[in-house]
Amino acid sequence: MRYAGACPFTLTRRVRWGDCDPAGIIYTPRVLDYAMEALEAWFREVVGVPWLTMNREMGMGAPTVRAEMDFLAAPYPDQDIVMDLRVESLGRSSITFLVTGQDGVDNALFRVKLVSCFIARPAFKPTAIPEAFRERIVAYQKACKTG
Amino acid sequence: MRYAGACPFTLTRRVRWGDCDPAGIIYTPRVLDYAMEALEAWFREVVGVPWLTMNREMGMGAPTVRAEMDFLAAPYPDQDIVMDLRVESLGRSSITFLVTGQDGVDNALFRVKLVSCFIARPAFKPTAIPEAFRERIVAYQKACKTG
Amino acid sequence: MRYAGACPFTLTRRVRWGDCDPAGIIYTPRVLDYAMEALEAWFREVVGVPWLTMNREMGMGAPTVRAEMDFLAAPYPDQDIVMDLRVESLGRSSITFLVTGQDGVDNALFRVKLVSCFIARPAFKPTAIPEAFRERIVAYQKACKTG
Amino acid sequence: MRYAGACPFTLTRRVRWGDCDPAGIIYTPRVLDYAMEALEAWFREVVGVPWLTMNREMGMGAPTVRAEMDFLAAPYPDQDIVMDLRVESLGRSSITFLVTGQDGVDNALFRVKLVSCFIARPAFKPTAIPEAFRERIVAYQKACKTG
Repeated sequence: MRYAGACPFTLTRRVRWGDCDPAGIIYTPRVLDYAMEALEAWFREVVGVPWLTMNREMGMGAPTVRAEMDFLAAPYPDQDIVMDLRVESLGRSSITFLVTGQDGVDNALFRVKLVSCFIARPAFKPTAIPEAFRERIVAYQKACKTG
Repeated sequence: MRYAGACPFTLTRRVRWGDCDPAGIIYTPRVLDYAMEALEAWFREVVGVPWLTMNREMGMGAPTVRAEMDFLAAPYPDQDIVMDLRVESLGRSSITFLVTGQDGVDNALFRVKLVSCFIARPAFKPTAIPEAFRERIVAYQKACKTG
Repeated sequence: MRYAGACPFTLTRRVRWGDCDPAGIIYTPRVLDYAMEALEAWFREVVGVPWLTMNREMGMGAPTVRAEMDFLAAPYPDQDIVMDLRVESLGRSSITFLVTGQDGVDNALFRVKLVSCFIARPAFKPTAIPEAFRERIVAYQKACKTG
Repeated sequence: MRYAGACPFTLTRRVRWGDCDPAGIIYTPRVLDYAMEALEAWFREVVGVPWLTMNREMGMGAPTVRAEMDFLAAPYPDQDIVMDLRVESLGRSSITFLVTGQDGVDNALFRVKLVSCFIARPAFKPTAIPEAFRERIVAYQKACKTG
């Protein structure tokens, strides 16, 4: 299996007026929301499984169990943020992602590490990442390394 | 059946920093969110049915089908908003609510009219408001009129 | 002055997982947020003035003073919503917009009427729409009628 | 200076329907939003300075520069979450907080570490925590240790 998309996967997000607070910069929790938007899009487009399908048809989920965030510069309204997503490590049930937000030039605005854990519903217990998903994830990792 | 709680039902909400935008006032969609918070609390505390119970155990829902909002003054961070909720009319499947937000003194900040329609899931078709709910709603209306 | 862009102006928004509630459909206040996103983009791209510029450099604002919303069908995760924005009427200080959200085919999902009022800061009093803005708005209206 | 309030400072938050996603549990970024709500309340009530005052009258800010989050259990609608806030360390310009969210019994739901850095506006450069604030923060730390 080969991954034929962009390496790394990116999502561009324009900072909205309503994402910013009275200090004129992005309100902190919105950065996590942006990173989750990149993660959701990556699952849909790279792994090929929308979260709704995973939840409703496969009886699974991949909730975030840990996050680490570094806020390096303060995004402001109308700024375009290019987020790229890399898979840092892949375990039996869990995946560690690194989402980096950059301005159009070459300045990092934030770095968000996300650890997702696959669980079976409704027991909500960790379960192995399905083999079909794992193959696509490994192909993505490989493509990003050599790309 | 008699309603023994406060008339009208109120919910107080302090405006958060993150609810406000770079103009230093509340970001418009948050006002609808506040009104929905009052509605959710009213269903739980006056009708006695949390939305989760309605959805998961009764196979029903009460989505908003129409809203009208008047923004009379601009709330700012740390301001306390007292919202009261009145039932304006009660149909077979639908209810019209009026949520008014006021500052601590006597100035109206916003008025939100919400029309909810009871539906049966998963068909998502209008259904009659369950009799047990209707009794409590009528009791609430009566209490608010005479109170 | 002629308006050379798309008529009507549209913004496409994919419904996010986190925009939806435990009923599996969009949480009501998010629809207003979507409509505001279309409005913000229209000001930036059609009128040519980002809200931040209006606020910080021109000492003005255009807060929403009234909204009316009809929710016609319930959007769900991953659905693409195409919003178009039309100017319904143009006064001395205020503008009435109609934002319609549609699925890719031809079904209307929601209609949001928004009334914005230009104000001068910090007095927060209504003020005439600047002539340069008015010209572009009128050109947009004209283009949409004949287009 | 002595701190006379509750040790640790707590804020209770009921999980809202709209805070939860189609999996029926809280949408991850909302947890950071809850923790920020506790932090905002702590600044206002323990340090005695609302963020708006700090921003508009003192020309300062205390943006979050780093966050670490552990999600231990999945909160669901209507659940009450008791958050307590402790000061883990206090530097010249920065403070490290630990916000723990618990259900009513004794189960931790999440732990959020937040690092805030005081900055002077508009340069947005780190600045020493004002002495009046520092005294109150130290008093709070002391009270929490012996309490």
